[in-house]
Amino acid sequence: MLDYKLLEALATVVECGGFERAGATLGLTQSAISQRIRTLEIRLGQPALVRSPAIKATPAGQRLLNHVQQVKLLERDLSQSIPSLSESATRLRIALNADSLATWWADAIGDFCNQEGLLLDMVVEDQDIGLRKMREGDVAACLCSSAQPIAGARCVRLGEMTYLPLASPDYVERYLPEGLVESALRTAPVIVFGPDDQLQHRFLAGCGYHGSFPHHLCPSSEGFIKLALAGMGYGMVPELQAQDELKSGKLINIAPGKELRVELYWHFWRHGGDTMNRLTRTLTDTDSLA
Amino acid sequence: MLDYKLLEALATVVECGGFERAGATLGLTQSAISQRIRTLEIRLGQPALVRSPAIKATPAGQRLLNHVQQVKLLERDLSQSIPSLSESATRLRIALNADSLATWWADAIGDFCNQEGLLLDMVVEDQDIGLRKMREGDVAACLCSSAQPIAGARCVRLGEMTYLPLASPDYVERYLPEGLVESALRTAPVIVFGPDDQLQHRFLAGCGYHGSFPHHLCPSSEGFIKLALAGMGYGMVPELQAQDELKSGKLINIAPGKELRVELYWHFWRHGGDTMNRLTRTLTDTDSLA
Repeated sequence: MLDYKLLEALATVVECGGFERAGATLGLTQSAISQRIRTLEIRLGQPALVRSPAIKATPAGQRLLNHVQQVKLLERDLSQSIPSLSESATRLRIALNADSLATWWADAIGDFCNQEGLLLDMVVEDQDIGLRKMREGDVAACLCSSAQPIAGARCVRLGEMTYLPLASPDYVERYLPEGLVESALRTAPVIVFGPDDQLQHRFLAGCGYHGSFPHHLCPSSEGFIKLALAGMGYGMVPELQAQDELKSGKLINIAPGKELRVELYWHFWRHGGDTMNRLTRTLTDTDSLA
Repeated sequence: MLDYKLLEALATVVECGGFERAGATLGLTQSAISQRIRTLEIRLGQPALVRSPAIKATPAGQRLLNHVQQVKLLERDLSQSIPSLSESATRLRIALNADSLATWWADAIGDFCNQEGLLLDMVVEDQDIGLRKMREGDVAACLCSSAQPIAGARCVRLGEMTYLPLASPDYVERYLPEGLVESALRTAPVIVFGPDDQLQHRFLAGCGYHGSFPHHLCPSSEGFIKLALAGMGYGMVPELQAQDELKSGKLINIAPGKELRVELYWHFWRHGGDTMNRLTRTLTDTDSLA
């Protein structure tokens, strides 16, 4: 069998982003960690890690990480049938989109995690990076809007999120007094989540506007709403996240009927074991994502 | 003078993380961007970019980026005295901590940005990375808890955030029926923002507990509260962010008197120009961060 002490050192170095932190996590010295990685690389006959500029697994290292992730999931299943086996709870590493984490996610999986004593290590990533991390074995599952399964994994549709174009009444009065006319859209500031966020472009295209527009970049779901409340821009906000603000009138829908829907898919390793299957069932059964 | 078309190409490639996206942003083909970078590197006599594994400025490239960032700020001041000069609004790139963005930030700077027509490009980073990005010229300012000024920059104290140890009543009943006793702290799940988040460790040390504890990792301010509401763990939440949940009793303070305070400092380039000085004054005058 493989030497899992070495593989665990590799996985921990990549997860923690450094030898010193990995040592702290595993209760080892930094030099013990280095020694394990060196031993692993000698057996492997090639490097498992790129050290610079940032620590990252090589393609061979990634295959090992992927394997470790799957073994950990299987160990988890085993420890449920033989509880005395488990020294400590496993943490399941999952990539997901910021808006799900900010809205329905905890409601959907909270009871499950509590019942199973499952700990989560959540990584907020856009879809391309989330799926890449999954291919690299860095995460066990990925929640995103891509329906394209990756090799060795399954993909199920969970539902969709509705995004509304919201702004404060002040903002509307100031920038859109005549509604969404072209001259206003060219100068009214927009809030965009990040360079990969195409929702505002899709919204504007749906309004027949294809020109440029000034925008803030705000990579935080809660920050996004706060910017809208402060009248700094309008933006596409998940309906689930703005219930209170819509009810109180602090944010208003600037284009009723022009909402956008984004489908959400759950990608998980085919051989992820029973815990993963039960978590998947919990997610497909949820009504938190209405 | 330097050829700013080349420098702008460099800055855009680093900001967008790729040649193709930089081209889309500047309205150029990918090959035109590559040509500009090549020309710049020939003049520079050394590489300005590392291409692999991810695009990143070399130390020489970083000095150029730093320069571009400062020139942009100065151009902004100029365009305010000669409005016809400005083709498009500048976007000021700022690194800040997630909790500020999720709470008081927009309130503090919203009016200022609206009055000045200032657009922001916000980057959520922990303190070490935020300050590194500033040294590298990738951001013009950084909001974090480090009081140590970096060379060429100023640092002013803005105030402090108070963090409370919060959990749902369900959670307390389930995991902490006898309060914060050692046997409970060893098994009660904690919510931790990320590997760099030491708040829960500090809190537990303040309670006299120094052992290990099971924890979820949740790098999202809003997700953090949602996990706490779902009874998945307790965690240190900014008081500013949990007003409603505390009032309604959905979250409770599990250790009154054990709150933690985190100081916040604003780092900005000394020669950042008038806009930066006015933004700094707005921040030092704010009462949003009480």
